[in-house]
Amino acid sequence: MKLSRLGEFGLIEQIRRSLPADRGVRLGIGDDAAWVENPGGSSLITADLLIEGVHFDLKWTSLFDLGFKSLAVNLSDIAAMGGVPAYAILSLGIPAHFDSRDVAAFYRGIQALARSSHVSVVGGDTSIATTLIISVCVIGHAPHGAVRRSGATVGDDIYVTGTLGDSALALQLLRLKSAAYKKGPAAKLLERHRRPMPRLTAGALLAKERLATAMIDVSDGLLQDLGHICRASGTGAVIYNADLPLSVAYRALAGQDGTRHALTGGEDYELLFCARPANRASLENLSKRARVPITRIGTCVHGRRVLVIDSAGKSISIGGLGGHDHFKKTQVRRNTR
Amino acid sequence: MKLSRLGEFGLIEQIRRSLPADRGVRLGIGDDAAWVENPGGSSLITADLLIEGVHFDLKWTSLFDLGFKSLAVNLSDIAAMGGVPAYAILSLGIPAHFDSRDVAAFYRGIQALARSSHVSVVGGDTSIATTLIISVCVIGHAPHGAVRRSGATVGDDIYVTGTLGDSALALQLLRLKSAAYKKGPAAKLLERHRRPMPRLTAGALLAKERLATAMIDVSDGLLQDLGHICRASGTGAVIYNADLPLSVAYRALAGQDGTRHALTGGEDYELLFCARPANRASLENLSKRARVPITRIGTCVHGRRVLVIDSAGKSISIGGLGGHDHFKKTQVRRNTR
Repeated sequence: MKLSRLGEFGLIEQIRRSLPADRGVRLGIGDDAAWVENPGGSSLITADLLIEGVHFDLKWTSLFDLGFKSLAVNLSDIAAMGGVPAYAILSLGIPAHFDSRDVAAFYRGIQALARSSHVSVVGGDTSIATTLIISVCVIGHAPHGAVRRSGATVGDDIYVTGTLGDSALALQLLRLKSAAYKKGPAAKLLERHRRPMPRLTAGALLAKERLATAMIDVSDGLLQDLGHICRASGTGAVIYNADLPLSVAYRALAGQDGTRHALTGGEDYELLFCARPANRASLENLSKRARVPITRIGTCVHGRRVLVIDSAGKSISIGGLGGHDHFKKTQVRRNTR
Repeated sequence: MKLSRLGEFGLIEQIRRSLPADRGVRLGIGDDAAWVENPGGSSLITADLLIEGVHFDLKWTSLFDLGFKSLAVNLSDIAAMGGVPAYAILSLGIPAHFDSRDVAAFYRGIQALARSSHVSVVGGDTSIATTLIISVCVIGHAPHGAVRRSGATVGDDIYVTGTLGDSALALQLLRLKSAAYKKGPAAKLLERHRRPMPRLTAGALLAKERLATAMIDVSDGLLQDLGHICRASGTGAVIYNADLPLSVAYRALAGQDGTRHALTGGEDYELLFCARPANRASLENLSKRARVPITRIGTCVHGRRVLVIDSAGKSISIGGLGGHDHFKKTQVRRNTR
């Protein structure tokens, strides 16, 4: 079957079926990171591939920011398992016209986040290429076990850290070369798009205190990523549109887009998780200790659907806004995803 | 500085200098794999990036073989540290015109080697791309410590497993569409080019019995890879041309190329290592247990040069045959490296 028909998630499912449940693997394909056994403990392993022209455009991304973000997306996967990242290895395909200063800037961006996250960069591979290719693999520890996508049950609250939609709105401003892009609030959105901060402290605390029943990071859009939790857990979900956490900058600049970017925009790298209603006070307390806002945005329900309802209790149509699939949207050239 | 001037190894050195010696890292950039500390032990981490048009050409490589080889080159790096591979994670950039059967064939190739090597494939990332991009990361254990490149001393013997030059000669036959390519002996060379077998048993035994003072795998050509050992160890080396282990097929087909491919051809994925002369009998014994020929081909000497001498004791000129540098040879489009 053509990949454009099978789609990204159909392909992942095909790959998952073709790989046997091997020894030492507690959790293989189908979560934010793999969870494997080691002598003396367990490790989390995650990898991301970023390709120029597909995931980023050097027209509006500096190499420093690209380095920062390449590591950030992987650390976010470790955060979504409740783990602690330890080592990063990266392979680069570099166009011949690049200068060694370009590569140095990229590594400074990597190191800026690696240092603040206590991650050691241990090497990798370099090769010539026609476009810039970045492949990062991060290995982490799981001192408190790993939080899967599959543990939510009907009645669980649904939470998200930070604010939603900032990155996608920033990308729209960049694409449209909107005049708003020069205004004050836009700078905050652009910062979030260019240098997302993985929610490592919150993720690790949620695992340690066993407060999250299921967790994922918001990389492809809230509704799509919540769909992954629902499918893995066998629940449906209701999201309260009025409760979505929006930044001041987002409210100032979203205009008639309303909550569209918050619901379906990618690259927020916030944590989306479920928790028992009995733990609401504990989560407020955790939010303070992790120094990150945590907002309750919905509830797990019976069924298989993810519904968004407005303040009057009516379901909002979200047709055609279902997040990103690499292979099904091959006509759309995505930039700085 | 332009990368084409700096060269691949200049770039690696620049990256190495820019990365601090981080905690937990026993060995970072500059060996076959990184060696890091974990709670309860230590791990080896290695990564390789393979790009269509740079490292392989689908005209003469099947997707099954490509999957097999993508894993093999990483396992060979673990073997060269004396480690035991455990987990592989892979990221794929796939052209939109691919069929799901193509991807399935690739994974069958990966799995064929993974299963026989007791390696668990734990997932990764998939993305759309304009050419096929394969990024593999392998994590292994180092139960007997890691064998570095830097431990050779003057007077050490130099050994290599298996035979040399088969893969490079096969590639030449493919490129020239030589009639010899149809003959019997060529099939054996092609097999070695397409499905190299990482020397995992020999590597792990050499580490366990502390017989190798320095080790590397032959991926870029014997002389270049021996040069890495010499630079890291602060020695020179003399190689006896007449002692190079050549396969029957190589002898039948190399013709006037003589030992050229054995000295400088890439992708043999044999182990090249140094050992004390007192351990010759132990190495003969190890060769039998690992079921792989091990041949003594030279000696570590004072100085910084790698010399090849013929049976009359005269130095053979090896100018212009110094192995592969990605960035310095950007005009040469390498296929099925």
